[in-house]
Amino acid sequence: MRYTPAAEITERLSNLRILMEKASLDGAFFHHKVDYFYLTGTMQNGILFVPADDDPIFFVKRAFPRARKESPLKRILPIRSSKEIVSELKPMKRVGLQLDVMSYNDVMQFKKFLGSAETVDSSPLTRELRKYKSPYEISLMKKAGAIGKKVYARVPELLKEGMTEIELGGLLEAHAKALGHEGILRTRSLMFEAYSWHILSGISGTVVSQVDTPAGGLGLSPAFPMGAGMKKIKAHEPIMIDFPICYQGYLVDETRMFAIGSMPELFLKAYDACREIQYRVLDKALTGMGSDKLFEYSLDLARQMGFGANYLGVKQHRVRFLAHGIGLELSDMPFIAAAHKYPIEKNTVLAIEPKMVFPGKGICGIENTVLIKDGAYRVLSNTDERVVVV
Amino acid sequence: MRYTPAAEITERLSNLRILMEKASLDGAFFHHKVDYFYLTGTMQNGILFVPADDDPIFFVKRAFPRARKESPLKRILPIRSSKEIVSELKPMKRVGLQLDVMSYNDVMQFKKFLGSAETVDSSPLTRELRKYKSPYEISLMKKAGAIGKKVYARVPELLKEGMTEIELGGLLEAHAKALGHEGILRTRSLMFEAYSWHILSGISGTVVSQVDTPAGGLGLSPAFPMGAGMKKIKAHEPIMIDFPICYQGYLVDETRMFAIGSMPELFLKAYDACREIQYRVLDKALTGMGSDKLFEYSLDLARQMGFGANYLGVKQHRVRFLAHGIGLELSDMPFIAAAHKYPIEKNTVLAIEPKMVFPGKGICGIENTVLIKDGAYRVLSNTDERVVVV
Repeated sequence: MRYTPAAEITERLSNLRILMEKASLDGAFFHHKVDYFYLTGTMQNGILFVPADDDPIFFVKRAFPRARKESPLKRILPIRSSKEIVSELKPMKRVGLQLDVMSYNDVMQFKKFLGSAETVDSSPLTRELRKYKSPYEISLMKKAGAIGKKVYARVPELLKEGMTEIELGGLLEAHAKALGHEGILRTRSLMFEAYSWHILSGISGTVVSQVDTPAGGLGLSPAFPMGAGMKKIKAHEPIMIDFPICYQGYLVDETRMFAIGSMPELFLKAYDACREIQYRVLDKALTGMGSDKLFEYSLDLARQMGFGANYLGVKQHRVRFLAHGIGLELSDMPFIAAAHKYPIEKNTVLAIEPKMVFPGKGICGIENTVLIKDGAYRVLSNTDERVVVV
Repeated sequence: MRYTPAAEITERLSNLRILMEKASLDGAFFHHKVDYFYLTGTMQNGILFVPADDDPIFFVKRAFPRARKESPLKRILPIRSSKEIVSELKPMKRVGLQLDVMSYNDVMQFKKFLGSAETVDSSPLTRELRKYKSPYEISLMKKAGAIGKKVYARVPELLKEGMTEIELGGLLEAHAKALGHEGILRTRSLMFEAYSWHILSGISGTVVSQVDTPAGGLGLSPAFPMGAGMKKIKAHEPIMIDFPICYQGYLVDETRMFAIGSMPELFLKAYDACREIQYRVLDKALTGMGSDKLFEYSLDLARQMGFGANYLGVKQHRVRFLAHGIGLELSDMPFIAAAHKYPIEKNTVLAIEPKMVFPGKGICGIENTVLIKDGAYRVLSNTDERVVVV
């Protein structure tokens, strides 16, 4: 088992304190597993409390010795229920709770413990911290990228005409898991589910799904209406494989194109356009252009290349983002999106995914996970980008 | 694609109205995907509103034509944002919102739209409805059970000494997916994740995890600290495979025991005890005994058989439930648990899982998904229960 280094946790907590001071918080609670894992190194069942002027306390509901082993925090206390937390708290005026991911019922119960204290959302703090990736985090994401590369390398051997999309997805996932892929793709919402096995062949790629992405898919049933389904993969159709990897909690998102026999010319051209848009937008991002302007710029490029009607989905289903931040969740900050205004800062990591939909025919596109550096970028998902025809 | 029959949806909505009337609600919203799928037949991105005295409206944020195809509801309206819902609402005094699964922030935003209306939790309504399974639902769960049986049948061929737990898990899952297994196991909380590939060999089975279950496991990293890990499977140790299947959204949970070469005598005996406890508790459940009493009864049985110290976990990590309801979520009602008092009613489905932990050695146990009928029960997970030694 690899544990988060103590120095990493210390630095994160020290950065958190700066944000807490700015937000005038006497203390902040972190209930969201991903966030307290980031701040403690453990995901054992518990609640993290960070007081403004004292050591953080991780209250563990289950698996206390394991939390002790995984986290370098000094104050780790076993509790049976959230009520026991109260005795460890000093009076506070203004307290952070994770109001974006805690249920209404949980928040109301917790507010009772806190008495008259004003409660504010503490999630913007961890979302801000987690936006910037440390060299340690990048090293894990590189390993995730290396697993992805090995998974894509298996496609030529596994892809056969007549197999279903989900069959291929399962085989790729089995290979990925044996290499350490953690299978569940975390997002920040109960309303959103993502799967690794997002494989869309031919017309599957044109089916709009419940998720805000150009690449929908039929899925397996109305209860799982997205991604790979029971459609048989045919020769001479575009096959998009969008296969995120999760390693030690860190995600890397990647999409590549495949075909059996041949890829229709239209899709080869559209794919080249997607690659070009991707790299031109990344170059532009380094100039400090704002997120919304980058998004507009990508639309202009698609129009100039003759794909304005296909880019990021068709008509009212065109999605309003080109890239999402990525790390412990698929929905990390920052985004390249119509509604976001900030420039893309260094040490952030984006999954950029220009994709094009052709009604009645299929989808094509590329996706890479890219680290933004000072005046440069580095691709962490480094599978060869050429279309693979088997 | 198989769609939920219109008669099924009509009956569910008609039962919902009875509960709404009891709760004196003028209307109820359902934001939780699983719940609105149950009431509409579609999981496309949207919100269901059921007025007390008019047809339900499903407001679709994305994939409107698909929602129309999947759901028999008459009133399906496309919207761009939740705000547009307001214009369709009549003034209401008392409204249901899903306060157990909606985030605090989402509830607060929604309350603004609702003005002065009193809001109460609408989740108890769907949890109550979903507790009882219809013949249609049971038919889907039987199919999930049949997929599970085929997956377990592959174990003798795939299980090899020296392979890692996760490697076996991935291979079984690939097979399950090709048969229609939907991979994600839904629970009702952002704080709880479950995986199909819960494979624990030897001492892995004794590692307590963040989840309230006797069967923990190391998992792949501190970021995924549960279930199958990188431990190599050895000969002569107990191997527990807990592999839930999801078919058309419906879950069936099942656990069986395997070994390479031989299973230690202690585990064979403990496994027999688990089987006996399972069937004796089910027999007792048919008498109308309360949930807490059934739980106590199972503890007594374990003690009488000499496994009091091992049953459902060791010391402070003993879990306080023996069975959980199952259907569209792993956390359906009812439970057989220390803190629940009701009798187990007919037409409910339970995953009953007596398991025993032996520190330093391993875990063993059984799990079946069982339909409670009038004076009888029927096992839906019907893989042969004998220990398989390969």
